[in-house]
Amino acid sequence: MAKQTKFTFGLWTVGWLGADPFGSATRATISVEETLEQLKAAGAYGITAHDDDIFPFDASETERREAIDRLKLALEATHLKMPMLTTNLFSHPIFKDGAFTSNDREVRRFAIRKVLRNLDLANELGAETFVMWGGREGAEYDSAKNVVDALARYREAINFLGDYVVDQGYKIRFALEPKPNEPRGDILLPTVGHALGFIQTLDRPELVGLNPEVGHEQMAGLNFTAGIAQALDAGKLFHIDLNGQKGIKYDQDLVFGHGDLANAFALVHLLEFGKEGKSAYDGPRHFDYKPSRTEDWTGVWESARANIRMYNLLLERAERFENDPEVKALKQRAKLDQLALPTINSGESASDLRNSSEWSSFEPDEYFNGRGAGFVQLNQIALEHLMGAR
Amino acid sequence: MAKQTKFTFGLWTVGWLGADPFGSATRATISVEETLEQLKAAGAYGITAHDDDIFPFDASETERREAIDRLKLALEATHLKMPMLTTNLFSHPIFKDGAFTSNDREVRRFAIRKVLRNLDLANELGAETFVMWGGREGAEYDSAKNVVDALARYREAINFLGDYVVDQGYKIRFALEPKPNEPRGDILLPTVGHALGFIQTLDRPELVGLNPEVGHEQMAGLNFTAGIAQALDAGKLFHIDLNGQKGIKYDQDLVFGHGDLANAFALVHLLEFGKEGKSAYDGPRHFDYKPSRTEDWTGVWESARANIRMYNLLLERAERFENDPEVKALKQRAKLDQLALPTINSGESASDLRNSSEWSSFEPDEYFNGRGAGFVQLNQIALEHLMGAR
Amino acid sequence: MAKQTKFTFGLWTVGWLGADPFGSATRATISVEETLEQLKAAGAYGITAHDDDIFPFDASETERREAIDRLKLALEATHLKMPMLTTNLFSHPIFKDGAFTSNDREVRRFAIRKVLRNLDLANELGAETFVMWGGREGAEYDSAKNVVDALARYREAINFLGDYVVDQGYKIRFALEPKPNEPRGDILLPTVGHALGFIQTLDRPELVGLNPEVGHEQMAGLNFTAGIAQALDAGKLFHIDLNGQKGIKYDQDLVFGHGDLANAFALVHLLEFGKEGKSAYDGPRHFDYKPSRTEDWTGVWESARANIRMYNLLLERAERFENDPEVKALKQRAKLDQLALPTINSGESASDLRNSSEWSSFEPDEYFNGRGAGFVQLNQIALEHLMGAR
Amino acid sequence: MAKQTKFTFGLWTVGWLGADPFGSATRATISVEETLEQLKAAGAYGITAHDDDIFPFDASETERREAIDRLKLALEATHLKMPMLTTNLFSHPIFKDGAFTSNDREVRRFAIRKVLRNLDLANELGAETFVMWGGREGAEYDSAKNVVDALARYREAINFLGDYVVDQGYKIRFALEPKPNEPRGDILLPTVGHALGFIQTLDRPELVGLNPEVGHEQMAGLNFTAGIAQALDAGKLFHIDLNGQKGIKYDQDLVFGHGDLANAFALVHLLEFGKEGKSAYDGPRHFDYKPSRTEDWTGVWESARANIRMYNLLLERAERFENDPEVKALKQRAKLDQLALPTINSGESASDLRNSSEWSSFEPDEYFNGRGAGFVQLNQIALEHLMGAR
Repeated sequence: MAKQTKFTFGLWTVGWLGADPFGSATRATISVEETLEQLKAAGAYGITAHDDDIFPFDASETERREAIDRLKLALEATHLKMPMLTTNLFSHPIFKDGAFTSNDREVRRFAIRKVLRNLDLANELGAETFVMWGGREGAEYDSAKNVVDALARYREAINFLGDYVVDQGYKIRFALEPKPNEPRGDILLPTVGHALGFIQTLDRPELVGLNPEVGHEQMAGLNFTAGIAQALDAGKLFHIDLNGQKGIKYDQDLVFGHGDLANAFALVHLLEFGKEGKSAYDGPRHFDYKPSRTEDWTGVWESARANIRMYNLLLERAERFENDPEVKALKQRAKLDQLALPTINSGESASDLRNSSEWSSFEPDEYFNGRGAGFVQLNQIALEHLMGAR
Repeated sequence: MAKQTKFTFGLWTVGWLGADPFGSATRATISVEETLEQLKAAGAYGITAHDDDIFPFDASETERREAIDRLKLALEATHLKMPMLTTNLFSHPIFKDGAFTSNDREVRRFAIRKVLRNLDLANELGAETFVMWGGREGAEYDSAKNVVDALARYREAINFLGDYVVDQGYKIRFALEPKPNEPRGDILLPTVGHALGFIQTLDRPELVGLNPEVGHEQMAGLNFTAGIAQALDAGKLFHIDLNGQKGIKYDQDLVFGHGDLANAFALVHLLEFGKEGKSAYDGPRHFDYKPSRTEDWTGVWESARANIRMYNLLLERAERFENDPEVKALKQRAKLDQLALPTINSGESASDLRNSSEWSSFEPDEYFNGRGAGFVQLNQIALEHLMGAR
Repeated sequence: MAKQTKFTFGLWTVGWLGADPFGSATRATISVEETLEQLKAAGAYGITAHDDDIFPFDASETERREAIDRLKLALEATHLKMPMLTTNLFSHPIFKDGAFTSNDREVRRFAIRKVLRNLDLANELGAETFVMWGGREGAEYDSAKNVVDALARYREAINFLGDYVVDQGYKIRFALEPKPNEPRGDILLPTVGHALGFIQTLDRPELVGLNPEVGHEQMAGLNFTAGIAQALDAGKLFHIDLNGQKGIKYDQDLVFGHGDLANAFALVHLLEFGKEGKSAYDGPRHFDYKPSRTEDWTGVWESARANIRMYNLLLERAERFENDPEVKALKQRAKLDQLALPTINSGESASDLRNSSEWSSFEPDEYFNGRGAGFVQLNQIALEHLMGAR
Repeated sequence: MAKQTKFTFGLWTVGWLGADPFGSATRATISVEETLEQLKAAGAYGITAHDDDIFPFDASETERREAIDRLKLALEATHLKMPMLTTNLFSHPIFKDGAFTSNDREVRRFAIRKVLRNLDLANELGAETFVMWGGREGAEYDSAKNVVDALARYREAINFLGDYVVDQGYKIRFALEPKPNEPRGDILLPTVGHALGFIQTLDRPELVGLNPEVGHEQMAGLNFTAGIAQALDAGKLFHIDLNGQKGIKYDQDLVFGHGDLANAFALVHLLEFGKEGKSAYDGPRHFDYKPSRTEDWTGVWESARANIRMYNLLLERAERFENDPEVKALKQRAKLDQLALPTINSGESASDLRNSSEWSSFEPDEYFNGRGAGFVQLNQIALEHLMGAR
């Protein structure tokens, strides 16, 4: 089963050289060819990139083309795919107050223009998912941003880009990536939920979904797996960023599973068995992590492998959990099968419900000192599966 | 200006007797008549309630009617309004695993039945907003709840109740109240965003909006004012719960403004001047707070007054901030006026934008070491208004 | 190995009936005899209690004695030990502003008197550890408490009680239990560190140590295992409260290991192998958890067993991790052996260090793009041990 | 009063050029002379620095001396003081796993050597406080660091450096600066409390105190003012870092007061009036903040001024709060005067307390439904002072 899983890595992940707010880089850059060879060797199915990962922000037309062609050659040589492309709208000083929602109209226009060009590149490279992380769309101060205006500009930009994709006939869908904060004090569309709500206000909601990232939701103390379930419920899980985060703090981008292990187990179970026992998401398992700054290149490649190893170990354990008869019995005791049933009988009206014969014998107080759910035991057995103890 | 503001209080707010997870009540209950008289004297426009605040969970039909009639008399005597009603679906043991999303189908049916009856009461009392806080809809363990199923049940319940309201011709709108956790480990629809996203999956999205609570968003580290702006953008601010919270911890329900003061200032500014300088929300300013457990009844009424006093002080300061010419100049410097302008020219195509003449002279690097936004100074002046220093 | 571990449970843990801030109890009380029998059957070595767990706050002298004698009989019958006793200084309204640090001097005197009596009981019951959790020592508002004065009162109380213990010749040591908040907005001595600092200001620091609780440190986002290491370094780990917490939120008191599983693994490894491969702490493994409110008594006893089962599973995995030759090699690569060596040579002066011959060939830049630590791989292997994958 | 306040700024604060984890610098560097002139003009009393702020990490001996002399001239020219110096032990790749507690012994030795040299410089420049922020002392993974060993190395380093200061006869005291995380996943000595506890394990505890930073404590959700009170109680407030932070997230380093305004008000009140109505701390008010990345140099100097302006506004309001007769009455009602009194009578024994005549009439139940503390009203009046409304 693990063989079929499509594991992808952002070029910027293994390519992160270790510079952080308090220290300079600890690693020297390597070539794109070496990067792709190493990722291939580690078990990757494909790679992803920002435009600026392929060529510099201020590349000339010739430099840009050379870099793209070089990447294409490297992809061919390694048989790696490139299912997703995204735009860097956050590193250059021009984006210091955002891109689509910068207060400065010229910046907003520049940002849209940068994305237009990148959409052409996505089409050229065959990337069908186009991620938009608006990391600079936000503010440190409430007075610095009229959020109602900013959301209008955000919507305007995505609508315009959606029209472009449709007009060009590109086979591309957008995936918004929420994050609560960092590098801005507060970022617009801070969670999976906020992005889901926003999508419904767009001209073409069908064209836009989500790219949720494990650590980003956990930076708001939210349950990532529950968020993914809501995204699935809304039909909006277009892509996913797997990594690790240890609670509410700065964005850690640890290896997948190296943060909240129990929630990672639940996530893999949901992705792989969440749709009536079958896979609930068929896209790439995309790792968006950073190899710790303490590591040299040996450690970088070990960390890349660790992501895949963690996913596969969790997958094995989730499969056993899914198929364990004792678990099935505990789920029945916990009435999880009842949750899948409609609450209202077919054709039942409000009046029917109110006057149903069931109420003559129904006694709410039986739920005191009885009718326990057995959730703790079910969780214990889940954890025993996670720990390989069953 | 302050005179016109409609301040309302939940009966359960001043009625909270001080029992918490580690201690018993510190206050004895008082009559509904005294409660309403005191709230009237404190400056309230109206009150709100759960069904169980008016009569006990297991009241007989007669007891229920007597309690309702007694409340109606007290409302008449004090000329207090009752613009909102809500249902207690969390206190009784029957709701220990939730109400609309309990794994137990009988509980789900019971919960809907309880709400149906309460909708009739809302109609009788003239409450036009019907809040739904699903405090028990959630889980402590990922294995205990299939969230996709749970959301389907949540949707089913609200759709059914929406049909009822329409069928009965009630002038009632629903307002969902998000909360990330407590009393459940993770609650469904944890933030303003998640609820906005969910509403769009309902049969009658127009009937359902939000009742965001200051402290609930802040328990996820989110900017409440930014969340309210997104709710306004979506046309979904149906009601609002004002209180105070000091960061990410247990639900504190402090007096409004006694938590994050600067964000409370921004909130009042948004509510009162957020729609082109005019009020962006015309509903009640509803206080959902708890008088600290250290207080006796004297302190309870002081705390009720403190809510109104804080709102009015913030309103005065927000008004001066709105009209200060220096602030207007700083906003212009910060290009907030540009944010209100469309990014794309009227009729402009993608091709037009890419080939616009502006790019011949445009230089991104001018944003390095120049073109500062002046946000810090604008925030400083905002805080000086808040501190009454201008 | 697991057989020797002394597992203890607070009477208030399995005895918690499920009342929380938003709901009433879901379980009916059971007898002390049944409680002890069930805990014995679950594998407990002993129990612990607050005074108020044994007899009511307002028990007459006779009632108190009867309850104590009844408990002693039940202890004898089950051969359970009682290694720790503590005082309830938080439930009754009298403690609404604290006990040792209440602004009200009469309350402070009453609190000390309650503890004096309870120290006699601890001595009678043979409890050698006396825990002090100051859950109500704190404030919601900065103006409500002069913290410098409050710390002086806290110190005064503990000094007085320490004198008493010494004067009586009791074999009792105090263990302070830190917590950052809940039920107070901010609690004095909020973390392991603050309590360690405070102890050094006492008259008899040797008599006072810590009772750290997993969830309490994690409510401040702190690494519990690192805190325990600092407590061990200071010789102050007198007792320990094991449970589970999922990040920064209300106090969850989940089963041990049902929160941050990876940190629980590190904790068990530290406790069992942290002193040069041997046990670093020999006291009871005390579970201070709450059986989820969704459970009936069957679930309560399952949850009690789950605590022990988790500890034993983690212990087995920690032992394998400790003895795995590959782990030893990875630790050496990560230079963990060097960390155990003094930095300064024996007898080396500052001048010696500055002029040491090593600097002639030392090149800081070799740490760029080289000399990686291999921490990610070491962590990966640790997690594989935790997951039973090695 | 404000005139006398000694405001100081780290060279690295206004000198921060805006590079963050997701973007490059937005400002160009300026000369040390201009920096000092601008800070002088903004109202500064002095400046502080890391060694690496004065000369590069790899400066030759000549370059180092030239840079120092140039700084000294600039200090003379502006009459600015330099009361504090600190060492950069975090930016260069050599410190990627820490300095005093790096697993690599050579690194630890190198770090101590760097500090020795910097102590000589502190002595030369007349800096009497030597701050030690161990930002890289920590780990991302529990397996990567034996914390007990690491604390032993930390202690060894500080003991060695303390000996050096004493041997040289330098008038220098050390001030440890706690931080919970960032740039490491968990940092050793994460809070004021942990550092206080650690200091007591040193050879020369009298030589070592604290340099607490507002935002660092708040990143753990802790009450900064309460932490400062404990530091004062322990006689360990040697220096202070003022800035702003909006809750538990990445390290924001906002302008002082631009984060939690109410707690900043309480802090200024404590510093200025906390010792029986007089100043509780006489050292510099040191701003350790970052001018937002959105700002150009005009905004940088505005932000520097904003720090001083905020402090002075809070000072004025704290003074009025201190002297308001209504506040004094509310404090008396809240029994804050009683908290300053010993709990135990002079000479009173445990036996005296137990048998005191007061108990014959004492009734704990009077604290139910009575004896309210009035804390909410006191806090409301405090906030009204903060808002300039009284």
